Amino acid sequence: MDKAIILTGITTTGTPHLGNYVGAIRPAIAASKNQNAKPFYFLADYHSLIKCQEPERVKRSSLEIAATWLALGLDTDNAVFYRQSDVPEILELTWMLTCVTAKGLMNRAHAYKAAVADNEQGGEQDPDKGITMGLFSYPILMAADILMFNANKVPVGRDQVQHIEMARDIAGRFNHIYGEYFALPEAVLDENGATLSGLDGRKMSKSYNNTIPLFEPENKLKKLINKIKTNSLEPGEPKETEGCTLFSIYQSFATADEVAQIRQRYAEGIGWGEMKRILFEHINGQIAPARERYDALMEKPDHIEEQLQEGAKKARAISSPFIRELRKAVGINRITS
Amino acid sequence: MDKAIILTGITTTGTPHLGNYVGAIRPAIAASKNQNAKPFYFLADYHSLIKCQEPERVKRSSLEIAATWLALGLDTDNAVFYRQSDVPEILELTWMLTCVTAKGLMNRAHAYKAAVADNEQGGEQDPDKGITMGLFSYPILMAADILMFNANKVPVGRDQVQHIEMARDIAGRFNHIYGEYFALPEAVLDENGATLSGLDGRKMSKSYNNTIPLFEPENKLKKLINKIKTNSLEPGEPKETEGCTLFSIYQSFATADEVAQIRQRYAEGIGWGEMKRILFEHINGQIAPARERYDALMEKPDHIEEQLQEGAKKARAISSPFIRELRKAVGINRITS
Repeated sequence: MDKAIILTGITTTGTPHLGNYVGAIRPAIAASKNQNAKPFYFLADYHSLIKCQEPERVKRSSLEIAATWLALGLDTDNAVFYRQSDVPEILELTWMLTCVTAKGLMNRAHAYKAAVADNEQGGEQDPDKGITMGLFSYPILMAADILMFNANKVPVGRDQVQHIEMARDIAGRFNHIYGEYFALPEAVLDENGATLSGLDGRKMSKSYNNTIPLFEPENKLKKLINKIKTNSLEPGEPKETEGCTLFSIYQSFATADEVAQIRQRYAEGIGWGEMKRILFEHINGQIAPARERYDALMEKPDHIEEQLQEGAKKARAISSPFIRELRKAVGINRITS
Repeated sequence: MDKAIILTGITTTGTPHLGNYVGAIRPAIAASKNQNAKPFYFLADYHSLIKCQEPERVKRSSLEIAATWLALGLDTDNAVFYRQSDVPEILELTWMLTCVTAKGLMNRAHAYKAAVADNEQGGEQDPDKGITMGLFSYPILMAADILMFNANKVPVGRDQVQHIEMARDIAGRFNHIYGEYFALPEAVLDENGATLSGLDGRKMSKSYNNTIPLFEPENKLKKLINKIKTNSLEPGEPKETEGCTLFSIYQSFATADEVAQIRQRYAEGIGWGEMKRILFEHINGQIAPARERYDALMEKPDHIEEQLQEGAKKARAISSPFIRELRKAVGINRITS
C-alpha cells in the first residue's frame, strides 16, 4: 500500500519562537520520522509575499526557518523538505486551477470575508479597500501546493479547514472536466497543536509582540524569561498553578513527573525568581544542543541551501513529470507528430 | 537607442479565418519584418484555458495558428515567436504581480463587469454565477505577459486598452514597492485593424458562425465564397458597391486600382456569379502559396515544434535571468553566504 502523503507549509515571514516550536515545529519534526508516511514540508515563500513586502525580512525568515528545522533534526531522508519557489510547477498548476475555480468560491473564503468586514466596520465606502488579489486568491495557491503532490492529509489549525475543503472542491472540478488527476485531500485537525503563553500571558504570537525567539542566545533567553509577568506574591506564600504563565510554559517542556514536582513546589511557596531560573534551565537544557547546531548552520548558509536543493530535486522529480501530464490533459502540451 | 519591444498574443481557441488574417495576422506579419523594432508574438495557450476546456481544440488551435503564422512568412529572425506555456516564468511573475494588485482593480475590468451584468439581466441571484477566477484575474496574467519582456508597445483593439492601463498600474505598484524593474507599457490602438464581413454580411467572427477558414482547400474556399449573401439583382442590372459583402471583402484583398475597376463593373451590372468567381480567384491567388506551405507544415508538426522551441529559447534567455532578479527583489531568492 502507498504511504499517505502529509503536507505542511511554513510561511516565511518571521523568526521562529517558542510558541511555533511547541505548537507546530516540535510535532512536525517528530512526524518527519514516521516511516509509515511520506511527509512533505515546505518554506511557503510565495505565500509570504501576500503578507510581507519587505524582501529582507522574507529572505531572513526563510534562512532562519530552514536552519531551525534542520537544527531540530528534521528527517530529510524520510521527508521532502523544499522551498516552494524552487518548484515553479506549483504556479503553473495554480493557473490551471484558477481557470476551473468559481469566483463565488473565493468570495466565501474566511480570510477575505474578515478583511471585508473590517472595512465595513471601519466605515469604508469600498469593501475591498486595501485587499490584494494575493489575499483574495491564495486558497488557489494553497490548493496547488497540495494537489501538486497529491497530498492525502494536510494538518491544519481550525481556521485553515475551509481552505482544504476548497482544495477538494477545486480538485473535484478539475477531475470532472479533465479526468481523474487529483486525490481529494483531507484536513487533519491539529487539536493537540498546543498554544504557548507569551511574555504577557496571552497566546505567544508575533502580532502581540510577546514572543521568545526559539534560538536566542542563552543570556537573552534568560532575560526574556525574567520578563514573564507574574503576580506579586512573595517567596514562601503558596501559589496557584492555574493561570500562571510560568507554570503553563513549563508544562509544555516537561514530563508529567516533572510537572507534578513543580506543582508541589508552588504549593510550598516557590519564589518567582527561583521558578524563572528553573524554567530557564529547563528550556535551555532542551534546546541548547539544537541551538548550537542552528548557530553553526547560520554560519554556513551554503549548507542550508544544499539541503534545500536536495529537497527541491526530490519534489521536482514528482512535480515535473506531473505537470507535463497535466499540460497534456488541458491541451497545452508540445506538438508531436 | 534600444529598439521598442512590441508584444502580441494570439489566443489558441480557434482556426484562423479570413477575418483574423485581414484584421490581425497580415499586419502583424508585415510588422514582424520591421528592423527598427523587436516584436514578440506568442501563442497565448494559458489564456485559452479561460475560455476553452476542450483540450483537443486548444491543442489543434495551437498547431494551426503556429503553422499559419509560419506559412505566411513571419520573420522569426527579427521577431521572437513562442508559446506562452514554454515560458513558465510568466506564471511566477503572475503570482508576484497578484500580490501587489488591488482586488478593486479587477472588480472594474470590463470583461468581468459585462459577465456580472449578464447575470443580473438574466435575473440571477448570484452576480458571480458561472464566472471563474480565470476570467476575473486574467488581466494580471496579461500584465505578466507584457512585463516579463518589458514590452513598450502593445497593439490592441479598443476593448483591450483597459487591460494595458491595468498592466501599467500593476507595474507602477510593483516598482513603487520593490524598485524600478518594469517599463510602463503603452497601448497602441489598432485602428486600421480592418474588420472583414462574414458570409452573412455581419463582421466575420467565430461567434457568428459566418467565417471562411483561411487555409481551406481550394474547392471548399470556392464553395464558401459562393455562399456569401447577395441581393437578388440580375446580371446586367447596375449594382451598389455600398453595403455589398462581396465588394467589401474584395476591397480587403485588392489595390486601389483593382477596386476602381470592380466598382466600374458593378455600375455596368456584373452578375453575382461572376463577382464570386473574381473574388475567389483573387483571394485564392493571394493565399495559395502560403496554403501550400501551411499544408506542408501541418504534415511536419515536428518542424513547427522546432521553431517554437527556438523562440522559447530566445524568450527564456530574457525571462530566466529577469525572474531571478525579480525573485531577489521580493526576497525569495536562493540563500548565498
